[in-house]
Amino acid sequence: MDALGYLTERAALLEPCLDAALPPAGEQPASLHAAMRHLLFPGGKRLRPGLCFAACEAVGGAPSLALPAAAAVELVHTYSLVHDDLPCMDDDDTRRGRPTVHVAFGEATAVLAGDALLALAFEVLARAGDAAAVAELAAAAGSRELVGGQALDLALSAADEPVVDAAAIEDVHRKKSAALIAAAVGLGARLGGADAALHAGLRAFGLDVGLAFQITDDLLDADDDGACSLARLGAPAARARAEALLAGALARIAALGVRAEPLRELARYAVRRDR
Amino acid sequence: MDALGYLTERAALLEPCLDAALPPAGEQPASLHAAMRHLLFPGGKRLRPGLCFAACEAVGGAPSLALPAAAAVELVHTYSLVHDDLPCMDDDDTRRGRPTVHVAFGEATAVLAGDALLALAFEVLARAGDAAAVAELAAAAGSRELVGGQALDLALSAADEPVVDAAAIEDVHRKKSAALIAAAVGLGARLGGADAALHAGLRAFGLDVGLAFQITDDLLDADDDGACSLARLGAPAARARAEALLAGALARIAALGVRAEPLRELARYAVRRDR
Repeated sequence: MDALGYLTERAALLEPCLDAALPPAGEQPASLHAAMRHLLFPGGKRLRPGLCFAACEAVGGAPSLALPAAAAVELVHTYSLVHDDLPCMDDDDTRRGRPTVHVAFGEATAVLAGDALLALAFEVLARAGDAAAVAELAAAAGSRELVGGQALDLALSAADEPVVDAAAIEDVHRKKSAALIAAAVGLGARLGGADAALHAGLRAFGLDVGLAFQITDDLLDADDDGACSLARLGAPAARARAEALLAGALARIAALGVRAEPLRELARYAVRRDR
Repeated sequence: MDALGYLTERAALLEPCLDAALPPAGEQPASLHAAMRHLLFPGGKRLRPGLCFAACEAVGGAPSLALPAAAAVELVHTYSLVHDDLPCMDDDDTRRGRPTVHVAFGEATAVLAGDALLALAFEVLARAGDAAAVAELAAAAGSRELVGGQALDLALSAADEPVVDAAAIEDVHRKKSAALIAAAVGLGARLGGADAALHAGLRAFGLDVGLAFQITDDLLDADDDGACSLARLGAPAARARAEALLAGALARIAALGVRAEPLRELARYAVRRDR
């Protein structure tokens, strides 16, 4: 099965779970609950949940075991987009061809909707009963990972000169983008029953895939006006770096055999997609 | 021991835990980490952590058992103040006599600092290993409680006419203020080993105390320009309602005996304080 087919199949698990986790759009406060759903339905490619399911299967777990983590990771991803789009951050008016949450519902409601999505992520995951999984997701969402990456990205973008320090750029990529992808993979493995060594290996796989994913994202983003892009170092070098990361990631999970094939397909798709 | 003495004594447990949970102020991104600490040190009265410790002791637990929950509740409280102060929300320039986080560090960093404090709350609590406790805190922080209350409060404040619907105002109080206080008490009881019935009774106690606390807060807030205050219904009636809630709360825990005395003292202090 190819990556998009896998994502479609797993969406049949994910979408009802996300829908059930959110209060109905009409429940008071109605604008808050509508705003929470605005960017979540329809969402994007659901790549992070897909990686979470596939990591669970790669270690021998049934995909349904990963469902709370897959939903939680997508909720964290969605919250981060809602806040990143705010006027005081990246100030984006549209995302995925639709108005951003603050354009559609106002800035205060967008801040609150993001806050509520973040809290909901932890509620959904905590109800699965695995406190260590919650700690793993919280660390990925915190000031040393996701939020720290956004803060560093804002600082780089505000610099007078474009930043071409490859190490500084990769630090932003690692925190802002790769950390949550590593958590998606790590949580899937954890809920699928991986032992500590297997979990660590899959997290390292996820971090490499996440870095390569972000390089691809920057290469695809023709409108990218940020300083934070390896594309500034030259597209061919950036493509080569992404392929090297992918190869390294795949080597890490070579021993997992055929049941890791969806995970490999998703990794290739994350890095080689054309949109 | 009186309430302030109890709070001072438990601060000796709490403050080092909070300090150790936060990255050092100098760690990169330095402005983010300094912003996370800005409102937390020095904090306020630490009433919510105090209630958490006291509830733990009321059910026979050592106060140190409640420490992760006490810290997590204070982190959630602090995040909510940082976001509530934002220009797009209540637009406050000062809090506790100091510049608010967005005034001191900028709006983007204030949004991110709040986000990171929220994620950190769940990380700290999750590391205690009790997933049900995480779910309880997450529900209290979510769109049906804390965040929903702030959304309803903003909507009431934006209304053309002052809202004097007592039920609507109490709904805001319950969600925006009492829910987190109920969670503080409930989490302390849970980590102290309470069974389900005792936990439920203490949560109900916390909800009543939280409602009375918010009425007192509104009565004390001479600068209150919001529509959301029972004080608008008349101060004598509001004071009587707060005392009735306190009496009801104390009746709920009458059977707990002498080890619940700090919890009773804190409840009386929360409702009868003069600042």
